[in-house]
Amino acid sequence: MPTLVMKFGGTSVANPDRIKRAAKRVGVEVAKGYNVIVIVSAMSGKTNELVGWVNEISPLYDAREYDAVVASGELVTAGLMALTLQEMDVPARSWQGWQVPVKTTSAHASARIEEIPTDNIVRTFENGMKVAVVAGFQGISPEGRVTTLGRGGSDTTAVAFAAAFGAERCDIYTDVDGVYTTDPRVSDKARKLDKIAFEEMLELASQGAKVLQTRSVELAMRYKVKLRVLSSFEEQSDQAGTLVCDEEEIMESNVVSGVAFSRDEAKMTLISVADRPGIAAAIFGPLAEAGINVDMIVQNISEEGRTDMTFSCPVDHVARADQALQEAKSSGSINYQELIADKDVAKLSVVGIGMRSHAGVAAKMFAALQAEGVNIKVITTSEIKISVLIDRKYMELAVQALHDAFELEKA
Amino acid sequence: MPTLVMKFGGTSVANPDRIKRAAKRVGVEVAKGYNVIVIVSAMSGKTNELVGWVNEISPLYDAREYDAVVASGELVTAGLMALTLQEMDVPARSWQGWQVPVKTTSAHASARIEEIPTDNIVRTFENGMKVAVVAGFQGISPEGRVTTLGRGGSDTTAVAFAAAFGAERCDIYTDVDGVYTTDPRVSDKARKLDKIAFEEMLELASQGAKVLQTRSVELAMRYKVKLRVLSSFEEQSDQAGTLVCDEEEIMESNVVSGVAFSRDEAKMTLISVADRPGIAAAIFGPLAEAGINVDMIVQNISEEGRTDMTFSCPVDHVARADQALQEAKSSGSINYQELIADKDVAKLSVVGIGMRSHAGVAAKMFAALQAEGVNIKVITTSEIKISVLIDRKYMELAVQALHDAFELEKA
Repeated sequence: MPTLVMKFGGTSVANPDRIKRAAKRVGVEVAKGYNVIVIVSAMSGKTNELVGWVNEISPLYDAREYDAVVASGELVTAGLMALTLQEMDVPARSWQGWQVPVKTTSAHASARIEEIPTDNIVRTFENGMKVAVVAGFQGISPEGRVTTLGRGGSDTTAVAFAAAFGAERCDIYTDVDGVYTTDPRVSDKARKLDKIAFEEMLELASQGAKVLQTRSVELAMRYKVKLRVLSSFEEQSDQAGTLVCDEEEIMESNVVSGVAFSRDEAKMTLISVADRPGIAAAIFGPLAEAGINVDMIVQNISEEGRTDMTFSCPVDHVARADQALQEAKSSGSINYQELIADKDVAKLSVVGIGMRSHAGVAAKMFAALQAEGVNIKVITTSEIKISVLIDRKYMELAVQALHDAFELEKA
Repeated sequence: MPTLVMKFGGTSVANPDRIKRAAKRVGVEVAKGYNVIVIVSAMSGKTNELVGWVNEISPLYDAREYDAVVASGELVTAGLMALTLQEMDVPARSWQGWQVPVKTTSAHASARIEEIPTDNIVRTFENGMKVAVVAGFQGISPEGRVTTLGRGGSDTTAVAFAAAFGAERCDIYTDVDGVYTTDPRVSDKARKLDKIAFEEMLELASQGAKVLQTRSVELAMRYKVKLRVLSSFEEQSDQAGTLVCDEEEIMESNVVSGVAFSRDEAKMTLISVADRPGIAAAIFGPLAEAGINVDMIVQNISEEGRTDMTFSCPVDHVARADQALQEAKSSGSINYQELIADKDVAKLSVVGIGMRSHAGVAAKMFAALQAEGVNIKVITTSEIKISVLIDRKYMELAVQALHDAFELEKA
């Protein structure tokens, strides 16, 4: 029988009533003849509550215990969803990460899924079960500890299951009705996209658009999983939401598809680092080991054998990055005069596959920012994206300016 | 190295500050040279929240899913406790039920522990770990599903670990400073007992004294685990709390040690049941299968081949009991005219090992109740206990009357 993966985010399972609404949608697909794998997030707010306790107790927490704590929210919704489906006479059971088992790496708090054996769940389908409700966001390490996949990891769980089970489609139910040119809360001109290419979605997600976790898009692209983002709060047609698909499936598109941003960035600068071969590895190796998510990296021109090294990372990684770098300094593997952390920056990106064939996108972007008096602190680019760091206070103004400049309100 | 088990109840781990306070107490024992196994409950209120959601969604829930949901609260506190100990430089890690693994029966929602292999945890102690923080209340079934041990099950987890690891003592930290002659909230004459015999504690626990889960006392009695009940909110001396121990260790005791009660009882009566051999089995078999905790059973005198059968059970089992009996009636295995459920009853018990050698306890109890005008609905007795069902509205009055009648305020 054909298999469908349906993922429900935190707001879609925020309480028993919402779980019932989501379960009805699952029931519709079961009635069509699908075996359904439902991936659930924790009730909205629950994961933040758990993370808050961990941070209160231990700011430099043991990530293995962090994972043990924060993975618990999804267990609750998985069980409640299974019960709700049973009440509707849909045969269902819940699966915790270790029961499937979802095998991951040992990189706690940002583990990667390595394998999802399908036999346990397939056996229940063969025995008449219609729905497997899987706790998202989690798995187990080779050591048998609970791991989590990073914030938004349930999206990745969903796509990984879709790939493992050869699902016909992976529907991501969330609190927005699709992917927009930018966040509608920031620009009222934001427009919903009917289709978006995997690569664009990948850049938008990694640049801060919170609709999908970056890795889920990577996985979907690699395994050609048809991914649909749609709202769990509206009646659905088959055309609802946004389809994330191959570039070839999109007839025509704008040069720029969207403007993404991320508020929670920090810019860290190491002043006066010895400029010698291997210095970048000596700096970024310890940061990687500490699990710091380094994003942009800029090295200034060297002067008398010394240089400044700037990088950006999520603002809540600053304390750990600071510690990792100080330890590296103490051990003598690196040397620097000063470490300056600027926690008041935001990242802004314009993304579009059309950039490949159109010049002048960067110039237009910088001009639009200049016209609003926004100073650019760091710039990085890729084939289909241009990102800048700016002062956080200008972020909303800048998003609106870019949305206007690239006329994203027009299809 | 000697091992100690320390169990912290829900109010003792209700928030990060309380967890810190509990962790300090663990640190004191580690400093004395113990390897400590800490058993934690869920934060107070959390399990009720989870149970509430389950009941809202599915009053006749699948107990496997109920367990998957309600076992999650302890995972949170186990991780947080491990983090707190690590912050104090005490080497600690958390253990979820399935990781140990705590092997139980498949009787979901009231599973029994069958085996606790010690090798995984012992290996960590050998490698320098000082504390194993274990999520209480749960285990896994032979089928690999999460099971729970029933409300208050963390006490049983604690005693079972103490038995499995040959612990020197099992300290149960709670929000009261010991075992009282009755609940101090009901009688201000209630007195703390320094020692109480296992059998008395067993009766008190099973008769509704909520200090310890019944099965934990059974286990402690069988495996001779020295059990101490004490408050996590007071400075402790070695003499603090109440020691639950062998009868022989108690020099002298009152005829009656305590008065227990339980508010949440229901009395169910099957009117006009065919009085034939095997009828009791035909009635109580289906109830047992449905997981109904039947307590008292009374069969009235038979008349013309028909009889009335009365039993008591927790008030929240009434709906399930009703369903199980109706199904048995439909299938033809039993027959009755009417099923009457009285949900407004309470159970009252006087308990004491002294009863074995003293006559007249029942007479004194009934006289004291009569003097207050309290009608007795059902009576059952054991060697060291007399229990009655009464109207719930008289419960507090009756407890006070019995406490006075047996002069329990005097040591």
